[in-house]
Amino acid sequence: MEGGICDIGLIGLAVMGQNLSLNIASKGFSIGVYNRTYQRTEDTLNRAKENNVVIHGYKTLEELISNLKKPRKIILLIKAGPAVDENIKNILKHFEKGDIIIDGGNEWYLNSERRITMCEEYKVEYLSMGVSGGEAGARYGCSFMPGGSRYAYDCVKDILEKCSAKVGTSPCVTYIGPRSSGNYVKMVHNGIEYGDMQLISESYMIMKNILNYDNMKISEVFEKWNKGILNSYLIEITYKILKKKDDLTDNHLVDVILDIAGAKGTGKWTMLEAIERGIPCPTMCAALDARNISAFKELRIKADDKFCNEMKIHNVDDLDIDSFENDLLNALYCCKIISYTQGLFLLKKVSEEMKWNLNLGEISRIWRGGCIIRAIFLDRITNAYKKNPNLDLLFLDEEFAQEMKNKLSSLRKVVHVATKSSVPIPAFSASLAYFQMVTSKNLPLNLVQAQRDYFGSHTYKRVDREGDFHTLWE
Amino acid sequence: MEGGICDIGLIGLAVMGQNLSLNIASKGFSIGVYNRTYQRTEDTLNRAKENNVVIHGYKTLEELISNLKKPRKIILLIKAGPAVDENIKNILKHFEKGDIIIDGGNEWYLNSERRITMCEEYKVEYLSMGVSGGEAGARYGCSFMPGGSRYAYDCVKDILEKCSAKVGTSPCVTYIGPRSSGNYVKMVHNGIEYGDMQLISESYMIMKNILNYDNMKISEVFEKWNKGILNSYLIEITYKILKKKDDLTDNHLVDVILDIAGAKGTGKWTMLEAIERGIPCPTMCAALDARNISAFKELRIKADDKFCNEMKIHNVDDLDIDSFENDLLNALYCCKIISYTQGLFLLKKVSEEMKWNLNLGEISRIWRGGCIIRAIFLDRITNAYKKNPNLDLLFLDEEFAQEMKNKLSSLRKVVHVATKSSVPIPAFSASLAYFQMVTSKNLPLNLVQAQRDYFGSHTYKRVDREGDFHTLWE
Repeated sequence: MEGGICDIGLIGLAVMGQNLSLNIASKGFSIGVYNRTYQRTEDTLNRAKENNVVIHGYKTLEELISNLKKPRKIILLIKAGPAVDENIKNILKHFEKGDIIIDGGNEWYLNSERRITMCEEYKVEYLSMGVSGGEAGARYGCSFMPGGSRYAYDCVKDILEKCSAKVGTSPCVTYIGPRSSGNYVKMVHNGIEYGDMQLISESYMIMKNILNYDNMKISEVFEKWNKGILNSYLIEITYKILKKKDDLTDNHLVDVILDIAGAKGTGKWTMLEAIERGIPCPTMCAALDARNISAFKELRIKADDKFCNEMKIHNVDDLDIDSFENDLLNALYCCKIISYTQGLFLLKKVSEEMKWNLNLGEISRIWRGGCIIRAIFLDRITNAYKKNPNLDLLFLDEEFAQEMKNKLSSLRKVVHVATKSSVPIPAFSASLAYFQMVTSKNLPLNLVQAQRDYFGSHTYKRVDREGDFHTLWE
Repeated sequence: MEGGICDIGLIGLAVMGQNLSLNIASKGFSIGVYNRTYQRTEDTLNRAKENNVVIHGYKTLEELISNLKKPRKIILLIKAGPAVDENIKNILKHFEKGDIIIDGGNEWYLNSERRITMCEEYKVEYLSMGVSGGEAGARYGCSFMPGGSRYAYDCVKDILEKCSAKVGTSPCVTYIGPRSSGNYVKMVHNGIEYGDMQLISESYMIMKNILNYDNMKISEVFEKWNKGILNSYLIEITYKILKKKDDLTDNHLVDVILDIAGAKGTGKWTMLEAIERGIPCPTMCAALDARNISAFKELRIKADDKFCNEMKIHNVDDLDIDSFENDLLNALYCCKIISYTQGLFLLKKVSEEMKWNLNLGEISRIWRGGCIIRAIFLDRITNAYKKNPNLDLLFLDEEFAQEMKNKLSSLRKVVHVATKSSVPIPAFSASLAYFQMVTSKNLPLNLVQAQRDYFGSHTYKRVDREGDFHTLWE
């Protein structure tokens, strides 16, 4: 079994697996692939031919493994959950000490923790690796977030760097940290993505319902914004979406798409973690809630019928359209800063609790390209952490703080105008409330603690002396 | 072992256990008690003497059990978690078929599920019972939320009814539903309580910082409100708290209490469940976040230093104080309706998913007295569910809908004035956003779904025809 021909193996040839295989092959690596149903392997081999690259297809897992160079390396790109366990079990029958398993799925980090412990017993090295960038990223360059065995990372570093997206010459991959940290970072990336998307959709609604812009005009605004500080993949696709005409009707496509947004679970996971660890992430929570509320379409129609008169859009007097459009740009940017502050604070806290020693600057750096949240903005986050790797909250960085100071009145204006106009902006208002709370040395929670002491004898601390106090209130 | 003398046994003589023992004894039941450390048993027996009631104290669990009438009944009032498992294990050594274990702690419902399954093997009957009302409630009448064995409920119904709070002649206890439903309902009760407390604290902050009221004036307002539609235990203790002078200084006590609010976990659990099941509860989430943010006191001071100029309270011109005070009353009431809508919707959904067949009208009825969220308002909720037991959302009830219509403009006003003034109101604004989203037949989530289709080929549905569609966007 010595002397296999393949640098790396890949199991799972759905969209992501096929494209990543082509990507790896086109970078000059020898890759072997295997899929449970052979048809997909054939599809992959055909695509390889079309692309003038060589991929080795195998009909069994054993065949794949026996053709791998040592230490053997296999990337799994299959549906997270039990199927991954099943595959790992089978791989472990053939793997030897020092061989490497890389799970590239969106896996719940505690599943990876369990698998890492199991692989340790076999002395097999394990990477749990977030992969972002969708189909196109997998094919032409994505953002990899590999965590786990440092040895394994060093063995595949060359492949990952070559297959990753580049920003300038900088590859969008780094060693994230030990154990399941790769999954965790990818999960939070996705939670942040939820927030970005919700904030954009609220901006769209504000332009549509308060500024009365049509799709083309809104598209132009996003296109203009994409040339400035908001330059990013999500803003780019937004202006393209808004331009797109429907093939079946005369409408703009966006107007015939049903207003129900699905979700595959990573946003929910991020929120479960945020709640579990007591780290507020209200912007992404508003985004998750909005998707969940969107699913109750029938109920919304029923409720709308009942309250339609109260929910009419109110025109706001004296609104200067140009200056409000600029306020909206500023407000969206503020909310982005606030939302990333929350997500990165969650990462900071989990890093401390799990002793992962995450480098938030490096993580921001590899998010600059390949992945869905890629944006010019991430350059500045990278710089902020370069200046201060222990930055507590992103918006406390001098440069971001200055921007928040300059733009905060715009955010306030957008929230209060939207409130007056009866346009729901859960993510904008949650972001503003978070910023205000976190920057308030005095909150009214003294009253809450007094209530807790009153009805539950939970005691309280005082502002003027040490100790725990209890009052006999009655 | 036939012919014990005690109607019921109780294990765990901390605050709740001592008071509930006295309550049970004073209602004429014969009760035996046991505590791991005997000192607490002695304290309890002394308190019984002072109160002229008889309580039987035992030094061992075996002694307690051998003195119980059959079927034996034991209430556990000990710290939730492993200690409960330990006690159940010991009890099961002595219990026979048909004997009854009642856990009165704030237990995570899945722990109870596990214990119920275990007790079923022993043919021992199990009740998981929420108990709300704190110390005073336990002593003089609380709200009981027992779920699990119907047979067990019927065996202790008389005791629970006599020891519960009464509203008129109606005892604040009912059979909640099968298995762990009692824990679940108590958990959501506590989540709702978090929301109520946060909304009150935001109202306090608005009066303090926007209306510039002092503590006595704010206290007077709450006292006035307590005579109207907001009449409730939490409003009552709030006005009493605000009046209270500090013993150590010349200040009002509320002003020397540190603004960090603790939490014992049921609010967090409720949010974990809400997120897990995809049922948005943004009001209680804002409340939980606020407590978590309050704990980051040092960080808040640091951030406040940086942004103090931007966070100054802005005076709002032309604010009519009397009419704004009335707006605040209306807004708080609206938010209460919205918050309870969320909590009850979570209960409705879990009831469907777990097949618990919860009676939301009955649950609202038993929350009218004894418990922390008791309020005149719950009468109206009870009536709403009497009219329509399948009510989807509380605010769709005709009467509540009418109130929402009448008062919504006040809520909008409070949110936009507070926004302008730079007073953080996370729970008010999250409540308003939720209401607006749920009553919107059209949300901007069509754009989010278009983005998902663009970068991830997740497909979308159309407004004008059936099926799943995917667009080649590029």
